[in-house]
Amino acid sequence: MTTTPLQPTDRTALRRSKERAATDRQELYDVLLDGMFCHLGVVVDGAPLVLPTAYGVDLDEGPDGTLYLHGSVAARSVVAAPQQTICVTITHADGLVLARSAFHHSVNYRSAVIFGVPRLVTDPDEKLHALNRIVDHLVPGRSTAVRPPNRKELAKTSVLALSLTEASVKTRSGPANDEEQDLDLPYWTGVIPLHVVAGEPENNPDCDLLVPAHIRTRANLLGAPS
Amino acid sequence: MTTTPLQPTDRTALRRSKERAATDRQELYDVLLDGMFCHLGVVVDGAPLVLPTAYGVDLDEGPDGTLYLHGSVAARSVVAAPQQTICVTITHADGLVLARSAFHHSVNYRSAVIFGVPRLVTDPDEKLHALNRIVDHLVPGRSTAVRPPNRKELAKTSVLALSLTEASVKTRSGPANDEEQDLDLPYWTGVIPLHVVAGEPENNPDCDLLVPAHIRTRANLLGAPS
Repeated sequence: MTTTPLQPTDRTALRRSKERAATDRQELYDVLLDGMFCHLGVVVDGAPLVLPTAYGVDLDEGPDGTLYLHGSVAARSVVAAPQQTICVTITHADGLVLARSAFHHSVNYRSAVIFGVPRLVTDPDEKLHALNRIVDHLVPGRSTAVRPPNRKELAKTSVLALSLTEASVKTRSGPANDEEQDLDLPYWTGVIPLHVVAGEPENNPDCDLLVPAHIRTRANLLGAPS
Repeated sequence: MTTTPLQPTDRTALRRSKERAATDRQELYDVLLDGMFCHLGVVVDGAPLVLPTAYGVDLDEGPDGTLYLHGSVAARSVVAAPQQTICVTITHADGLVLARSAFHHSVNYRSAVIFGVPRLVTDPDEKLHALNRIVDHLVPGRSTAVRPPNRKELAKTSVLALSLTEASVKTRSGPANDEEQDLDLPYWTGVIPLHVVAGEPENNPDCDLLVPAHIRTRANLLGAPS
């Protein structure tokens, strides 16, 4: 696919800390591909509802790539979503930034915010494809090492497709930024790095198969930081 | 403080997977105290906006305890929040749950969802207290080892107080739950545990102080999983 730059809309243009805005579409994809979960925001009865959920990505679907979400057909968030603009946020917390002043405490992070009216996926082939992308997003290769969903299971599951057209990326990295006049204060300043890591895969009690390569690879990828 | 059970409202009552609902207020506090960041949902121009942010907690403030949020006085989310119901979600992802069937793939997690109309904190003493709770939530003890915010910095910062009255907690733990007829399928099933861990604290380039005990303690608390 060709990648177009992120075109800020009124919603996605950053008002503050503009130096933290990324305008490169590749940065959006990197945040999406690195993440495992998102927070989905919908409006239900006039109030926001924010729920954590898994997601999948297909960068070759649609002009700007597509994010897939799924849920029970009965889930409030999934029922409400196709009739409205939703907001999907993916956040990586990379470090606690401890400044000499309370005011300049911060967090190193990468976050993506995507807006759009999602499309309810009804085509059975696309629905299966989307669900495979969601499973493979959590563990690459997993969709070919499981029993695929049957008709009954597909009927119980709603799938939403959200174009990656209207999105913004914001990141912060590096050390704390204190005021000039605070640099000699006797307070420690620095960063506590944060990482999401995987522990050793745990077999289900009723499963005595060896941990397969795709599971081992995923756990290693999320291994302890170097 | 006395703790009252979580009273489900129409918004917080779980519709599905009711066995995952916690009704014990202590479980809410545990999710809040374990977390470092939340996702704040507000409605701006009719659409949801979900942003990651830090938070602080004071369980002795108000009848059910209080969550504190802060942001620039110019931030869209903070400006919009005091006039409306907001949603604050805190999520811990504890593990990837890999079933023999695609359908039963899941995530072990603990999440809290809090609804309410926040109060803009204007009293200078409460504002300072709230900001200290936010800093101390990230690193316990930090607020006494920094230069406190001055008048100008306080004026640049908005603080919101949200009562922990209307909230729900949902958790999943344990192995995958496959269908009876899938138990003999030749697919590995189990859990990849996930942890957020801290790396070695990194001094700012212009700071040659030893890493102090409160920083060391925080990093150890988030140490590699046992």
